Amino acid sequence: MLDQRSPGDLTIEDVRTAHERIKPYIHRTPVLTSSFLNELTGAELFFKCENFQKAGAFKVRGASNSVFGLTDEVAKLGVATHSSGNHALSLSYAAGRRGIPCHVVMPRTAPQAKKDAVRGYGGIITECEPSTTSREEVFAKVQAETGAEFVHPYNDLRVITGQATCSLEMMEQTDGLDAVIAPIGGGGMISGTCLTLSNIAPDVDIYAAEPEQADDAYRSFKAGHIIADDAPETVADGLKVPLKDNTWHFVSHNVTDILTASEDEIIDAMKLTWARMKIVIEASCAVPLATILKNREVFAGRRVGVIITGGNVDLDKLPWIK
Amino acid sequence: MLDQRSPGDLTIEDVRTAHERIKPYIHRTPVLTSSFLNELTGAELFFKCENFQKAGAFKVRGASNSVFGLTDEVAKLGVATHSSGNHALSLSYAAGRRGIPCHVVMPRTAPQAKKDAVRGYGGIITECEPSTTSREEVFAKVQAETGAEFVHPYNDLRVITGQATCSLEMMEQTDGLDAVIAPIGGGGMISGTCLTLSNIAPDVDIYAAEPEQADDAYRSFKAGHIIADDAPETVADGLKVPLKDNTWHFVSHNVTDILTASEDEIIDAMKLTWARMKIVIEASCAVPLATILKNREVFAGRRVGVIITGGNVDLDKLPWIK
Repeated sequence: MLDQRSPGDLTIEDVRTAHERIKPYIHRTPVLTSSFLNELTGAELFFKCENFQKAGAFKVRGASNSVFGLTDEVAKLGVATHSSGNHALSLSYAAGRRGIPCHVVMPRTAPQAKKDAVRGYGGIITECEPSTTSREEVFAKVQAETGAEFVHPYNDLRVITGQATCSLEMMEQTDGLDAVIAPIGGGGMISGTCLTLSNIAPDVDIYAAEPEQADDAYRSFKAGHIIADDAPETVADGLKVPLKDNTWHFVSHNVTDILTASEDEIIDAMKLTWARMKIVIEASCAVPLATILKNREVFAGRRVGVIITGGNVDLDKLPWIK
Repeated sequence: MLDQRSPGDLTIEDVRTAHERIKPYIHRTPVLTSSFLNELTGAELFFKCENFQKAGAFKVRGASNSVFGLTDEVAKLGVATHSSGNHALSLSYAAGRRGIPCHVVMPRTAPQAKKDAVRGYGGIITECEPSTTSREEVFAKVQAETGAEFVHPYNDLRVITGQATCSLEMMEQTDGLDAVIAPIGGGGMISGTCLTLSNIAPDVDIYAAEPEQADDAYRSFKAGHIIADDAPETVADGLKVPLKDNTWHFVSHNVTDILTASEDEIIDAMKLTWARMKIVIEASCAVPLATILKNREVFAGRRVGVIITGGNVDLDKLPWIK
């Protein structure tokens, strides 16, 4: 299985195969531009809008590639993961499309809205206590009982290969880019971006954008080894998780630089995107624009692809409304 | 001038001429779909997203057609209007693109954000007291002093012809429709829709959607003559103005029916659109979806074009957050 290869073995053919495999289950999301934001930044920005993706985020690419790449024998036992975010939604969606069960281990303290959303896509939730020990115990039990295939939210080569299809589309949809920037949490999207661009457009600079308050990837990048933080706090709640071996491979080999932004800068960029582009985006995917505004000299005069990773926001609790 | 013709004289050639004239200044906005909303309504919905339009609303179509249709002699004195909403923004934008002045009479009580937005597009604001008498007095004075050409927000055939380009594009972008629905305030968008569809697709039903609390168009439609209300209150603040003779012509001749929705239904449909389609839309353009959800039997099984008229929302004051 793909899983047992190492990240350096992945090829652009794997990405193309993944793209063909998942096409029936995902949207080819549009690339939007904003003359206002181009003027403001001095760059030419191309926003790849994965907030319009199925289940509201890019994660459905990796989840679909994992689910639809399984043999029938493995698939019939279902898939399992631990996540309270977009990966849980996406895996539930993909499993539902294949007609197999999806088991999700979630802390009992997770917001009801998130549990409802996972159940809305057909996911079967098993609750754990809000601690790593409990999560691991409960997850092991669920997996033992069901025999379901574990699909890690990002440290899984099938997932990374699925996320890689996003920049494959973006390169087809734009007429050449000088740089691409995406948010970094566990590094699944950035790894996929590296996988694609290092093969088909090795001259394109790849930037990762991270909250200052959860800058473990930034510090890892500077230190040359993975540094994992314990439960950082940031409004960009998709970006709290640490790098793992597979994603570290791509970050350490292919990323040009990691840029950070403060909480206020992230919230301002999020609100600015809503106000001027009229799209609903998560705080996580406002981090790239926040860093572009802050590092004008890096991006001005260049054609920059910006990956808008998702749009699953609690509309009752917006970070700029106190 | 076009202005001195009657609404019945307008032809599809006028619309096509307007479209060619304004193309350099507007976006061909995308048509989005949502499998979630299709399932929920039982209809096949095609959302024409004028929230992505220049200046954030469809009004830039009519404003651009007015501004760029002027002779150089008339244009050099500029244009003028009274509006505190999207028409003022749009006319300022279009005048700026032509390099002529745009005079806007606005109540001094209008929100600072709206004044800033108009000035941001280069509009020259003259403030009046918040009464019709004061507005008319101040406007007459501005016009006398400047000689600027008056462009009414909706009861102007140049404006109606400009708005008509929206459904021209929508019909090109979709593979045939059974019905089109748009919000109705003064009736500019609906009139443009009637102008286009009655010529190129006369079998398509045209529905107008209106807040119950500002249902003057509904009552006018049923009564067979214009009924104007004095300052109705609704969250759909673009829809408070009454029909006028030119828009009444189209409403009375070409509209299939007018449907209404309550304030709560409008707010729910607005939030649902943000949550599921990930787009920022004004309360006004949630009224069509609210009426579709309420009148399932009218729309189920049909291909329905829904005009999303604009996305200029005060993000600090969302109607579902108390």
